[in-house]
Amino acid sequence: MDVQYDVIIIGSGPAGLTAAVYATRANLKTLIFEAETPGGKLTKTYSIENYPGIKSISGVDLAMQMMEHGTEFGAAIEYAPVEKVENCGDYKKVVTAFGDEFTAKCVIVATGTKERTLDLPGSDEYTGRGISYCAVCDGAFYRNKDVVVVGGGNSALEEALYLTQLVNKVYIVIRRDVFRADATVVDKVKANEKIEIVTKSLPHALVTENKVITGLEIENVDTHELKVLNCSGIFPYIGADPATGFLKNYDVLDSKGYVIVDKNMATSVPGLYAAGDVTVKDLRQVVTATNDGAIAANSVTRYINK
Amino acid sequence: MDVQYDVIIIGSGPAGLTAAVYATRANLKTLIFEAETPGGKLTKTYSIENYPGIKSISGVDLAMQMMEHGTEFGAAIEYAPVEKVENCGDYKKVVTAFGDEFTAKCVIVATGTKERTLDLPGSDEYTGRGISYCAVCDGAFYRNKDVVVVGGGNSALEEALYLTQLVNKVYIVIRRDVFRADATVVDKVKANEKIEIVTKSLPHALVTENKVITGLEIENVDTHELKVLNCSGIFPYIGADPATGFLKNYDVLDSKGYVIVDKNMATSVPGLYAAGDVTVKDLRQVVTATNDGAIAANSVTRYINK
Repeated sequence: MDVQYDVIIIGSGPAGLTAAVYATRANLKTLIFEAETPGGKLTKTYSIENYPGIKSISGVDLAMQMMEHGTEFGAAIEYAPVEKVENCGDYKKVVTAFGDEFTAKCVIVATGTKERTLDLPGSDEYTGRGISYCAVCDGAFYRNKDVVVVGGGNSALEEALYLTQLVNKVYIVIRRDVFRADATVVDKVKANEKIEIVTKSLPHALVTENKVITGLEIENVDTHELKVLNCSGIFPYIGADPATGFLKNYDVLDSKGYVIVDKNMATSVPGLYAAGDVTVKDLRQVVTATNDGAIAANSVTRYINK
Repeated sequence: MDVQYDVIIIGSGPAGLTAAVYATRANLKTLIFEAETPGGKLTKTYSIENYPGIKSISGVDLAMQMMEHGTEFGAAIEYAPVEKVENCGDYKKVVTAFGDEFTAKCVIVATGTKERTLDLPGSDEYTGRGISYCAVCDGAFYRNKDVVVVGGGNSALEEALYLTQLVNKVYIVIRRDVFRADATVVDKVKANEKIEIVTKSLPHALVTENKVITGLEIENVDTHELKVLNCSGIFPYIGADPATGFLKNYDVLDSKGYVIVDKNMATSVPGLYAAGDVTVKDLRQVVTATNDGAIAANSVTRYINK
């Protein structure tokens, strides 16, 4: 059996693309899988100001630069969702949703996380038509209108700040009365006149008229009082879950679905590695993802040369 | 007692400067110490091709960009070697070699490593006059001459490649008959006509004439035969040791002097953290250093807000 690749990297965010740089610089024959847009979560981020050496860059630009860099030394790329990874002993078989099969000595899982969707009646129906999970992608549709951002983490607040450049007003709805985000970002949000912070509240129902969103009904978590925020768009940033459905047959996931790895980014399955946001870790950042990608590729190199 | 800073970061390489970005973005009052040139080992590296998103950049340029970024959000910087860090319970006192004292709630040690020097009679005398630990700094002094690089890791080989742009000939002396460096770098070295690889050999003595280096005597590790390589310059890249002399009074170092940290970059001493090459780790790279810096600063933020 001819194994086609030394390593298949699933996902082309900062972790996967860094793994590609390191793997190809070590002369490993490398294939990258991407189900959507290269760059992972970067492409949905307006501005990155904490990637050292680059003071400020749009997520899309950093994604493109990383993509060019990741494929600079000969990595191939396939645009397809991965359906499953079969463990064939000393090699792995990766099967895509289109039924195509590829083999490699090692696999690095770098699929990141997927945004948690708003769980209200009608949410699915209105996604892309009033509900958006990407302010950078869809913000311009709400020019001079009022919108609601749900969530109080860094992503929520940064996207809210981004939206103030386009829209008339941004409500930020948070469950508690404090934010989880960095202090500098919170300061910017509090100083922005276009933003109104609504604390201790949770989304309760979509308000629509003629199949168009006109508001979000929210519930106070203490008093259970209901109230409608009039808006044309809703941007939920309420967390994310690891994209590891295709690994269900392996005993490598924690109870939340994140991949358990050791300090070399190795799982308990020989030849199976993971890197970036998809792994069990405390701090999910571009710099921590690139770290993981480099370590995973280095471990793969040692595994193959052994 | 008024503690002056939230955090003092010792060292301004990629780890220290990333810690500065994250600490100041979390509104921590931050002071960085640098004993030499900001940028750490970057400033002695000709070219960086594995920092994701930047395909190729000189070490000095990346160091300058990281320095600008690290001080962008208000971090102060002091140019002084640190002599000791006193543990005063809920704060630390940092004492410089000049006798100045600074206090902070937390300290992040990011001092990296220092190149191991050539251990031959006369080595000290000829350092800077024929022996150099920085090809980028001193390579131009050896234009059109012959030089010897000692060592077979990535640094040695990359500096040898750099030197071929300036000098007439580069001997690379290695102890074994294989290199420890990345395959792509080894390929480039082997393909370069200006480079002659001398395997299974160790430096044995400096050869001088009228107080000027004219050669390096080497010994074959198998036959113990001696042989002189005629050269004007010697560039040793024979490893490095952690710069942790000022931490000797703490029980946080391993037998080689590296700082032992947990996954949050915390040492066993409350309020004392470390990041980057100075810590116990397998892979020392720019991306792994930035990772550590971000995690250390995040841990400090949580420690202080606790």
